[in-house]
Amino acid sequence: MYRSNTCGALRASDTNSIVTLSGWVHKVRDKGFVAWVDLRDRYGITQLVFDQDRTSSELLDKARELGRETVIQVKGEVIERASKNPNMPTGDIEVLVTELQVLNESKLPPFTIEDETDGGEDIRMKYRYLDIRRNPVKESLIFRHKVTMEVRKYLSEAGFIEVETPYLIKSTPEGARDFLVPSRMNEGQFYALPQSPQTFKQLLMVGGMDKYFQIVKCFRDEDLRADRQPEFTQIDCEMAFVEQEDILNAFEGLTKYLLKEIKGIDVSDFPRITYDEAMSRFGNDKPDIRFGMEFGELNAVAQHKDFNVFNSAELVVGIAVPGGASYTRKEIDKLIDWVRRPQVGAKGMVYVKCNEDGSFKSSVDKFYDQEDLGKWAEVTQAKAGDLICVLSGDTNQTRAQLSALRMELAQRLGLRKPDEFAPLWVIDFPLLELDEETGTYHAMHHPFTSPKPGQLELLDSNPGDVKANAYDLVLNGNEIGGGSIRIHDKEIQATMFKHLGFTPEEAKEQFGFLMDAFQYGAPPHGGIAFGLDRLVAILGGQETIRDFIAFPKNNSGRDVMIDAPAHIDDEQLKELHLRLDL
Amino acid sequence: MYRSNTCGALRASDTNSIVTLSGWVHKVRDKGFVAWVDLRDRYGITQLVFDQDRTSSELLDKARELGRETVIQVKGEVIERASKNPNMPTGDIEVLVTELQVLNESKLPPFTIEDETDGGEDIRMKYRYLDIRRNPVKESLIFRHKVTMEVRKYLSEAGFIEVETPYLIKSTPEGARDFLVPSRMNEGQFYALPQSPQTFKQLLMVGGMDKYFQIVKCFRDEDLRADRQPEFTQIDCEMAFVEQEDILNAFEGLTKYLLKEIKGIDVSDFPRITYDEAMSRFGNDKPDIRFGMEFGELNAVAQHKDFNVFNSAELVVGIAVPGGASYTRKEIDKLIDWVRRPQVGAKGMVYVKCNEDGSFKSSVDKFYDQEDLGKWAEVTQAKAGDLICVLSGDTNQTRAQLSALRMELAQRLGLRKPDEFAPLWVIDFPLLELDEETGTYHAMHHPFTSPKPGQLELLDSNPGDVKANAYDLVLNGNEIGGGSIRIHDKEIQATMFKHLGFTPEEAKEQFGFLMDAFQYGAPPHGGIAFGLDRLVAILGGQETIRDFIAFPKNNSGRDVMIDAPAHIDDEQLKELHLRLDL
Repeated sequence: MYRSNTCGALRASDTNSIVTLSGWVHKVRDKGFVAWVDLRDRYGITQLVFDQDRTSSELLDKARELGRETVIQVKGEVIERASKNPNMPTGDIEVLVTELQVLNESKLPPFTIEDETDGGEDIRMKYRYLDIRRNPVKESLIFRHKVTMEVRKYLSEAGFIEVETPYLIKSTPEGARDFLVPSRMNEGQFYALPQSPQTFKQLLMVGGMDKYFQIVKCFRDEDLRADRQPEFTQIDCEMAFVEQEDILNAFEGLTKYLLKEIKGIDVSDFPRITYDEAMSRFGNDKPDIRFGMEFGELNAVAQHKDFNVFNSAELVVGIAVPGGASYTRKEIDKLIDWVRRPQVGAKGMVYVKCNEDGSFKSSVDKFYDQEDLGKWAEVTQAKAGDLICVLSGDTNQTRAQLSALRMELAQRLGLRKPDEFAPLWVIDFPLLELDEETGTYHAMHHPFTSPKPGQLELLDSNPGDVKANAYDLVLNGNEIGGGSIRIHDKEIQATMFKHLGFTPEEAKEQFGFLMDAFQYGAPPHGGIAFGLDRLVAILGGQETIRDFIAFPKNNSGRDVMIDAPAHIDDEQLKELHLRLDL
Repeated sequence: MYRSNTCGALRASDTNSIVTLSGWVHKVRDKGFVAWVDLRDRYGITQLVFDQDRTSSELLDKARELGRETVIQVKGEVIERASKNPNMPTGDIEVLVTELQVLNESKLPPFTIEDETDGGEDIRMKYRYLDIRRNPVKESLIFRHKVTMEVRKYLSEAGFIEVETPYLIKSTPEGARDFLVPSRMNEGQFYALPQSPQTFKQLLMVGGMDKYFQIVKCFRDEDLRADRQPEFTQIDCEMAFVEQEDILNAFEGLTKYLLKEIKGIDVSDFPRITYDEAMSRFGNDKPDIRFGMEFGELNAVAQHKDFNVFNSAELVVGIAVPGGASYTRKEIDKLIDWVRRPQVGAKGMVYVKCNEDGSFKSSVDKFYDQEDLGKWAEVTQAKAGDLICVLSGDTNQTRAQLSALRMELAQRLGLRKPDEFAPLWVIDFPLLELDEETGTYHAMHHPFTSPKPGQLELLDSNPGDVKANAYDLVLNGNEIGGGSIRIHDKEIQATMFKHLGFTPEEAKEQFGFLMDAFQYGAPPHGGIAFGLDRLVAILGGQETIRDFIAFPKNNSGRDVMIDAPAHIDDEQLKELHLRLDL
């Protein structure tokens, strides 16, 4: 038996007990005549004491020489500490050691195993097994476990059945790229790893499973943006005999439950806004509504004067920055530089200072008088002391630019509080999205999303205007879930495939099994999928997902710890009937 | 809203309620003036009634024409049935329908959606979404969900943390074949899908995670034997600072909990027998101990006479078949034919009838007298009325043959009762296994298994004799779990790799990250993995796993429903820098 207790367990009430502990040497404080060793395991730290009065000199010497991260086992008596440490759960006691055994030596770790480490990102990833010993990473993984347990508990109690769908499936060339898996037993043929279990969960609905969920890995062979992973985890859900309202209610329930159980927070019913409204009020389909700074559209009040920049713009739009009237000229110039960075891409920025005395001072005083600017303030809801920032140009681009500025300023002003949670539903997404490069439309969500009733007819005349029974759950400026009511009618599905540019043969080859299934009594159904990695990170008060994943990959899709992907034997390639073509 | 209640919910107490139901038309009984429709969903069946007195003729006609598996929605009043059906939870009531809407038509399904279907295996797999509508499959999937929920609950409450390990890892050529995944972003390089998360869970122990579990898909590109799947699910577990005893106790606890919660069965402490004992008593390392028929080794009492078949045999071994003395000559000849089938491979079988009068009648009376045969009966614990079946030859082969006979006879005699559960631990497995083809030893469990204390020295002289800290959990003749205490010392691990035929370079290339990790304070650790598919099937009282998997593959590794694997576009191959080499 390696231990009678963990290193986080002992309290004053254990005084005089004889205990056995095992763990890692976290720290040694050596005063010569006395040495303290902090012994660490997953559960905490317990202080061991060795001194020349009560410990054999041999044992004391052994303790003094212990290196950091050595694995040891000790036996000893729990004694009350002379100077207690109220910041440690075990701070009332220490263990007077009588036996010490080194279970495994350790080389000096490449970075310190402390909450604030001296290790950079790269070295921490290479030695991830050491990084996991650090509290912030360890606690993030434990937190993730807790969240998934609560998700399963809630959904299971609500009658959802977790069903495992296959990982070795069939490639569907549209959309993001699949990872492919050559089959040895079926020469020249390939499986694909699922980008999501979408078609399988729909087949489960056809199969009468009624309420399905799965916490499941999904895969996308995409060029990785920052904070994306080639393998990621979804909470995947589907329900039969439901309308959009049923799904929103079910998963609003889950989200409220998680906020309550995990964070102790009660939130009221989630606001619902349409995609169009989200775009016009926040310039963004995943708005952070923890703070205001809503968009004010200024076309009506700014396009009547001689300012050509505005007159020729499709959209003139501004936000009121609280307290921004006090910014210096230099600070405002810096803001202008910020929006002109290629990542944002604005051509310039017009600003209006709303002075405390009720007057306005703008960068376009030549064109607009106080009355004009007063109207701007009204539209943007600017108060005395605020700064109105105005961008203009193409509607979509301008909204994206102003949204970026809004988020950046909120961050700087401390308005994006990690302990505040403001969920909302964004509904009525467009069914189709124009690919600006190719000029063709593709499914904004996926080809199985149903158009809103009566809008199917618009597909030919105004494809971009067709709205879908599609919705996103947004939390603190992040899309944490998205879903839709699906098409369950074979004819409508065939029409959709046609509009998405599939020939009937292509549709049959790729989705024939689903079209077949729809012939045998498919029920109305719909669902949602949550990005677990991000959900957990946001609930944990963080913006990056990496520390909530035990063994993440880097931006090149590499696992630098195990050094994968890697070259393989010629023999293995031969068995797969493949040759490299570099 | 598609329904106010499910089809399994309504009871006599709901009489007079107005309800809305949705589901599939299971059956229509048409008497002309009255029609009953059984409406089915996941939760049950509710009888709908339409008759000429209370229903409009239009509605009655519509109901009479409903085809099987049509999806409908109805509204109506719950009424008490005239003739109640006590075999149905909803058998006290029926719904008098006032509104009927067809939600989706159905073609005639290729097999009947009944508990006993007329569909063969192949057609059921192709239309798996229809097969899932059948109770036996649907209930198996729900049962699987229930088991996994209980596993997670138990382990989580015992302090285990579920950690997701990566699916895109590195190929390790030893052992079974990996599925490989070409990387688009890293030209000419491949990921592999994990055969198990073995090294990652060991790294989590190095990382101080202390108690880990994961219910996780694993992958093996093996030629599929019957009832094996290329992707399968494990309950994967690992613990730090443990000895074998700690692990056996922890997972005996889990197994007892599952038997109690799922089956309502209390089992006492699990017997533990060594691998050697299992082989000599049952000829099998996963013995079914729900019944006796233990092996009696007869060398000492059978090799002293002139029967050369026995005298030249390495092993003479028999079992007593209860009641077998009454078998006719023809029946016994059939048994002999059975053991001589190539799948079993015995050359012949000697038998002894233990007559009710205490005398013996054997097929070798020429060589053995009544006293000899009396000793055989003693060794095999045969009683009057039994039949002793004796095989001889090479020890390993003969044991395997007699074990096959033992299992076959137990099956025929009804001794393998699906509702009886007899778990046991088989411990002290050999560390290495001789590959008869190549004459080399390989790891019986895997290369990370630790030899028993003090046995490392035998590796050079008697590699086959070295016992490991390895154990299997056996239930009703099936290995449901297996594990070991791992090596946590870098030097011992290097020695093991050497003995398994790895050059230091190969060991470093494939497992360098693990060897590196062992330099930084690896704790003593060990674990176990359960085959979830089989565990669930056995708990469900079945021997085959296929119906406990939603979308299984066939014996060629194909998903016949979606038709995967499949050929891919040349464009996709090109992006992966690959060419086919057929």
